[in-house]
Amino acid sequence: MGTPKRKRHRIEFIAVGSELLSPHFLETNSLYLAEKLQELGWRLSFKTVVGDNLEELKEAVGLARQRSWLILISGGLGPTEDDRTRQAVAEVLGARLVFNQAILEKIRQRFESRGLRMTPSNRRQAYVIEGAEVLDNPHGTAPGLWLESRKEVIILLPGPPSELKPMVENLVLPRLKKYGQVRVLRASLRITGAGESFIEDRIKPVYKDLPENLQLITLASPADIQIRLEMTVGSQPEKDEKTFERIKNRIIRRLGPLVYSVEGRSLEEVVGQKLKAAGLKLACAESCSGGLLANRLTNVPGSSDYFLEGLVTYSNQSKMRELGVPEELLAAKGAVSEEVARVMAENMREKSGADLALSTTGIAGPGGGTPAKPVGLVYTALAFPGGSLVIRNLFRGNREQIKFQATQKALDMLRLKLIEMEKKTQLK
Amino acid sequence: MGTPKRKRHRIEFIAVGSELLSPHFLETNSLYLAEKLQELGWRLSFKTVVGDNLEELKEAVGLARQRSWLILISGGLGPTEDDRTRQAVAEVLGARLVFNQAILEKIRQRFESRGLRMTPSNRRQAYVIEGAEVLDNPHGTAPGLWLESRKEVIILLPGPPSELKPMVENLVLPRLKKYGQVRVLRASLRITGAGESFIEDRIKPVYKDLPENLQLITLASPADIQIRLEMTVGSQPEKDEKTFERIKNRIIRRLGPLVYSVEGRSLEEVVGQKLKAAGLKLACAESCSGGLLANRLTNVPGSSDYFLEGLVTYSNQSKMRELGVPEELLAAKGAVSEEVARVMAENMREKSGADLALSTTGIAGPGGGTPAKPVGLVYTALAFPGGSLVIRNLFRGNREQIKFQATQKALDMLRLKLIEMEKKTQLK
Repeated sequence: MGTPKRKRHRIEFIAVGSELLSPHFLETNSLYLAEKLQELGWRLSFKTVVGDNLEELKEAVGLARQRSWLILISGGLGPTEDDRTRQAVAEVLGARLVFNQAILEKIRQRFESRGLRMTPSNRRQAYVIEGAEVLDNPHGTAPGLWLESRKEVIILLPGPPSELKPMVENLVLPRLKKYGQVRVLRASLRITGAGESFIEDRIKPVYKDLPENLQLITLASPADIQIRLEMTVGSQPEKDEKTFERIKNRIIRRLGPLVYSVEGRSLEEVVGQKLKAAGLKLACAESCSGGLLANRLTNVPGSSDYFLEGLVTYSNQSKMRELGVPEELLAAKGAVSEEVARVMAENMREKSGADLALSTTGIAGPGGGTPAKPVGLVYTALAFPGGSLVIRNLFRGNREQIKFQATQKALDMLRLKLIEMEKKTQLK
Repeated sequence: MGTPKRKRHRIEFIAVGSELLSPHFLETNSLYLAEKLQELGWRLSFKTVVGDNLEELKEAVGLARQRSWLILISGGLGPTEDDRTRQAVAEVLGARLVFNQAILEKIRQRFESRGLRMTPSNRRQAYVIEGAEVLDNPHGTAPGLWLESRKEVIILLPGPPSELKPMVENLVLPRLKKYGQVRVLRASLRITGAGESFIEDRIKPVYKDLPENLQLITLASPADIQIRLEMTVGSQPEKDEKTFERIKNRIIRRLGPLVYSVEGRSLEEVVGQKLKAAGLKLACAESCSGGLLANRLTNVPGSSDYFLEGLVTYSNQSKMRELGVPEELLAAKGAVSEEVARVMAENMREKSGADLALSTTGIAGPGGGTPAKPVGLVYTALAFPGGSLVIRNLFRGNREQIKFQATQKALDMLRLKLIEMEKKTQLK
């Protein structure tokens, strides 16, 4: 393309909408677009958010034309006076807005198919920038626009993700491919059971062998770490693929069982698949996690195949009545104790008839902590055929973070036990 | 300030960091800054994200200087080669970077206080832009910088929110106040029990009376709508306050009991406060919501005061065993039925000894739907002293959205019942 070198590789995104400058809205279209551009091996150089203000919008577009060859703009295509994107781009390009009867018809039909009448203001959406190709919007009234010249490509997209995503997937990416795409190899390792610094130390030796075109990104949150590998395939694809696999497997080997998924799956999905494959049933008895464990397990479609039931025994009374935790034990050891965690899991397993049962009991805070039993102290237990296991944890963070870490630990105990059981059956 | 009129009111934010251009990271500092600026009655005109690239960074800063009087920049102040913000701003301003021994000392002490040794690369963080005021960073090694001239104010802030927020709160806002702040009145109404278009129609008559300086923002998500009111107080504060209250109360009156909070509280908090105030105890029996109801209730600190226990009776067996749902009823009506929902709530109330009990049973999908009982069909029930109540709901959305709407409906049934009980006791 006949663009100055410094511009050639610049790609930028402009999100239009005053609400995106308020404290209440996060602009998320750019994440989706960055991901899609990555599939072509491309990266964003700039992201800009600008309000529904004609002058500022024109400034942003004019600037983008000076520095980037590909400009994606989302929002401001609606029917109201606030929606100025078409006008701003037209003025910057010195192009006219021309009325398009076909678009108006589509909009009218859209309303009628819903038994509604089109509002006069929708007429505004039927004006297109001279020379633009219209991108159909089956999910809304605002069509997209594709403006291509020797110097640049400008793409106007609707703001709502439900309209933008299909348009990008079906109409924009196919058109962009002709500008040359790059293949990208990807892997997402998910890890729990160790802190970020420990993980860093374990994989540090791998860093020095990372080739230029392989990017390693670590995302850390309490009790859950993600390592994303991305490699842009160059002139020697086979060699790159080998390298990618070698690096990936080295990291997996160095982290061992800490890695619970190599396909970016959630821990509840992984555990669910293992339970289903082994034909085992699960039940859980929660105190401090207060239902989050059952909630995570049942977020997985099809979980009713292996998840029988959960109890949230928040009060001591319910621990006694529902789970038969002896009153003496509660009095002697307290609800937050290794012994109570164990009885909860064992009795839950027995009464539910499940093969495996999990339990949690602890202090999620902010109140209720003591020097002996501080906020964050959580016992997680697993009852399995022929035994039970309890782990004492001391978690940091706020109430919801502590609840999450408790469920993460319980699910991971289950995962490791299921792996052990798989091995045993394989030996047989 | 001696800046051209078109610049005077422009405020912009630049987030620095290549990761913020990837599909995996959301830039959130701008939300916090927008909120803080709002406290001064100010608004952002532009947000820009730029990578760790010296040339692009310089472009972004140079452009910002042309159009804005206040420029907030976060990120790129770290110790590594990637961290280029100081250098970029210095080059744009034509200023030198000067070494600051005091900063180096602070960094060294910070390391030593943790029993660590400072790395040589931290030396880079001790260089400050000539003429800049240093903003202390007690939560990290990167100090902030304040650059003030007749033409503009440029503020360099650390990227991590845990470092940026206290610096803005303690050092930046106080310094900005001298540029004149505006008082802003705020209210956040939270609403459930009706769709967005219904709410719109109800409050439409209020729109035409909205004064210029009062902004109304509606945030809609399935089963939860938020209306935010923000009014910039002008030259007649008393008059503005009266107007604000009048508008707010008109909206509240027009929506009636659909409004569950006027202080932006969550539904589980509101219900929790009412239960606590009335000294009533709650239990819940969940099928399709799978623990989410208990989880939401127990996310509220102190919920153990009124929440006794929850059951997640996912399988028919557990519905029979735990809740005594008759096998014949399950066979005749099916687990997803008004009758089963009612029995679940009533028996839960009885066995737990709670004053009130909620239940949910339905089809969260994606599988398991039939023409007679489609995905999204959910019965929510409430058992109370002297009776019970069941509502048949048909929710749209994915599995997690349907689970959320089920819990939202159940909590709202409880809220309305508690209001009714409050009224009765008041009458007595």
